[in-house]
Amino acid sequence: MRTGTSRDVVVAGNGLIGLVTAWRAAQRGLKVTVVSRESRNAASGVAAGMLTPATEATFGEEPLMRFCVLSRDRYPAFIAELEGESRLHAGFRPNGTLQIAFDTDDLAKLTELSELQTRLGVKAERLTSRECRKLEPMLAPSVRGGIFAPDDHSVDPRMLADALWSAAERNGVVGVRDRVTELLTDGGRARGVRLESGGEINAEQVVLATGAWTPGIGGVPEGALPPLRPVKGQLLRLRMPENEPPIVSRTVRGLVKGSPVYLVPRADGEIVVGATQEELGYDTRLTAGGLWEVLRDAHELVPGVSELEVTETCVGLRPGSSGNEPLLGPTRLPGLHVAVGHFRHGVLLTPATGDAMAEVLAGGDLPDYARRFAATREFGSDRNE
Amino acid sequence: MRTGTSRDVVVAGNGLIGLVTAWRAAQRGLKVTVVSRESRNAASGVAAGMLTPATEATFGEEPLMRFCVLSRDRYPAFIAELEGESRLHAGFRPNGTLQIAFDTDDLAKLTELSELQTRLGVKAERLTSRECRKLEPMLAPSVRGGIFAPDDHSVDPRMLADALWSAAERNGVVGVRDRVTELLTDGGRARGVRLESGGEINAEQVVLATGAWTPGIGGVPEGALPPLRPVKGQLLRLRMPENEPPIVSRTVRGLVKGSPVYLVPRADGEIVVGATQEELGYDTRLTAGGLWEVLRDAHELVPGVSELEVTETCVGLRPGSSGNEPLLGPTRLPGLHVAVGHFRHGVLLTPATGDAMAEVLAGGDLPDYARRFAATREFGSDRNE
Repeated sequence: MRTGTSRDVVVAGNGLIGLVTAWRAAQRGLKVTVVSRESRNAASGVAAGMLTPATEATFGEEPLMRFCVLSRDRYPAFIAELEGESRLHAGFRPNGTLQIAFDTDDLAKLTELSELQTRLGVKAERLTSRECRKLEPMLAPSVRGGIFAPDDHSVDPRMLADALWSAAERNGVVGVRDRVTELLTDGGRARGVRLESGGEINAEQVVLATGAWTPGIGGVPEGALPPLRPVKGQLLRLRMPENEPPIVSRTVRGLVKGSPVYLVPRADGEIVVGATQEELGYDTRLTAGGLWEVLRDAHELVPGVSELEVTETCVGLRPGSSGNEPLLGPTRLPGLHVAVGHFRHGVLLTPATGDAMAEVLAGGDLPDYARRFAATREFGSDRNE
Repeated sequence: MRTGTSRDVVVAGNGLIGLVTAWRAAQRGLKVTVVSRESRNAASGVAAGMLTPATEATFGEEPLMRFCVLSRDRYPAFIAELEGESRLHAGFRPNGTLQIAFDTDDLAKLTELSELQTRLGVKAERLTSRECRKLEPMLAPSVRGGIFAPDDHSVDPRMLADALWSAAERNGVVGVRDRVTELLTDGGRARGVRLESGGEINAEQVVLATGAWTPGIGGVPEGALPPLRPVKGQLLRLRMPENEPPIVSRTVRGLVKGSPVYLVPRADGEIVVGATQEELGYDTRLTAGGLWEVLRDAHELVPGVSELEVTETCVGLRPGSSGNEPLLGPTRLPGLHVAVGHFRHGVLLTPATGDAMAEVLAGGDLPDYARRFAATREFGSDRNE
C-alpha cells in the first residue's frame, strides 16, 4: 500500500500512548493514521492500570513524580471527555489506593515514602494496622501498617484503549493493521514509514509510540533516538466468584520483605496481581519463578487470593529509558517525534502525554511541565533541565 | 444416529482406561465402539504419567499396591506390543524414580515408606543426600536424603492415548464424537447408550470408563454403581530451554514439609510439575493457591525450575472411589460393566485394567489379581475379598 495523499501524522504503535497522541492530534484538526498490529506483548494490554504517583514515589525521581501527579490530576476530566466522545466506559475507578507494609523493615520503608510524599505535596494518610484492616478486612493480620492515598485511583487499560480507539476514529483517525519496519527519510527529514507488508505511508510528521520495541525500527539515523531497554513484567489476572464481596475493594499495594506486589480490583470481578520487574532483554516467556514470586507475595498480603480463579497470565515489556524518564516530542531528526520510555508509568502519564504531543504536532513547543522530558535532551551523567 | 446393527461392546470414555479396554477387547475379536468428546478436563490428558507404585506405597493400601506393581511390571511388554501395533511412540521412559525428603520430618516419613516397600518386595534403594545430588545435581543442597526406585518409570499419557487410539482403530474399533448421556436398559439388562446428539447405540455390553464424570450418566438403576467422587488436581507443564541439559533427568518426587510434589521430565524438554489434591466436587477452576502450592514445593526441591517457561496449566478430576480402589468388570446390572475409580493410578493401572476388562468382555471371569476390585463388591465398612 502506498497512500495517494500524504497524511499529516503517522503514529506507529497502538498502545495507550500512541492512541492518546492520535486522538488529541486529530482533535486539533490533523489527519492522523495509526499503524499497529495487535500484540499480546503490548505493555498497555498487560498493565494493571494503577494511577498511583503517591505510592510510586521514589527518591531521586522527584521531577518525574511531579509529572505523574500532574497527569493523575488530569485523569477525571480526561475520562469524562473521552467517555463523552467515545460513548464507551473507560474503566476508571476513583476509590483510592492503600499501600501496606508486611514486616517492620517494610514499614520503615513506607515511613520514608510517606515523608517524600509530604515533600511532594501529595495526599497520603498514615494508617495503623487496624485502620488498614478496617479499610480492607481480608488483609493478613500480620500487616504492620500502611498509607492511604485518597487521590490515587485505577483504570482498566484495555477498556481505556478501546475508548481511545473509538474516540480517535470519531475524530477521523485511520487505523492500519500492519507493522512499521522502517522510518523513511528524505533530505535530512522524516517523510513517512515503510510497512512489513511492503507498503509505505507518507506523512509530514512521524510519531514512534512503539514502547520497548522502538529500537527495532530501521532507518533511524544514528543519535536521533536515545537508548531504550525492555523491562519484563509478569502478572496474573484472577477472578472473584460471582455474587461474593470483592476480596479487596480498591488498589492494594504492598511491600513483602522488600518485594513489591499489588492487587488491582475491577468492577467486573477481575483482580490484576503483579508484577515482576526483570532485566532480561526481549524475553517474553512466562516463567515458573515469575508466577511463584507474584503469587507468594500476594498470598502473604491477602491470603484469600488462593481461592480465586486464575483467568489469565500475562507478560509485558515496559519501555525503560536511561533515568527511567519518558522521551517526548521532536527528536534531532526533523519530522520525527517520539513518545516512549514511560517505563512503569505509561497508563498514568497517558493524559499529560497526549496533551504534550498534540501541542508539538500542531506546531507548538513542549509545554513547560513536559520540557524536562524532551527527546532531544542529552543522555549521560548530566541532563538538560 | 441409531446404528443399524448392534455392536458387541460400546465403551463410554476415551481416557486411557476406555481406550485400553477397547483395544484389548477388539484384539479378542469383539466389535467395539468408543463414544467420547474431547475434554480438557479428562484426567488422562492432564496426568503426569508416573508409573511409581514403589514411591506411591501407602499403609493400609497394600492390596492396591500389589495390583499397581503387577501393572507396572507389565508395562515394558505392553508398550512394545502397543508401539508395534500402533506404529507410534508411546512416550515410555524407563529410567527410574528418585524420591527425596526436604527436611528431617520428611525423611522420617520416607524411612517408613522404605520399610513398607521392602515388605511389598519392591526394589527401592535408600540414598544419602549426597547420593541423591549425584543422581540429580540440580536438587536443592538442603535435601536430606531419598530413595531410588529403579523399576518405577514414566510414560507420556498424551502420547500413550494417541498410540492406543491408533492401535484400537487398526483392530476395527469405531470412534464416535459424542457424549453418552444415558444408559439404555431393556428387561433388566443394559442394551446400549443414548447420546447427547439424540442418537442411540445398541450393544450387548456397555462399559462406562468415564472416570469422575460417571455419576452424571442417567438411566443407571439404583445400586448398580458404587459412589465415585472427583478429586481435583492442578499442575503445570514447563519447558527446558533448547540445547540445555535437563534440570532433572528422571522423575523426581519429593516431600516438602509434608507436602508431596513431583517433576516428570519428557524426552522433548517438557517437565510436568504437580499436583494438588483437592476435595472440591466438580470444580475445574485453576486457582492462585493451587499454582502457588505446586510452584513453591517444586522451587524448594529444585530451585532452578524458576527459570523455566510455563507452557501450560492443567486442571483434572481424578475418579475417587470409596477406599480409593478401582472398580472393574460386571456390575449388578447384567450387560453393564465399569472400569472406573482409578484415582491417582489410572496411567499405571492401564495395562492390567485392559487385560482384566478384555477377559470379562470376552465372557470370562475377572482374573485373580483383579478380583478384589470387582465392581460388584460390597461398599461399607466390610468388603468382599
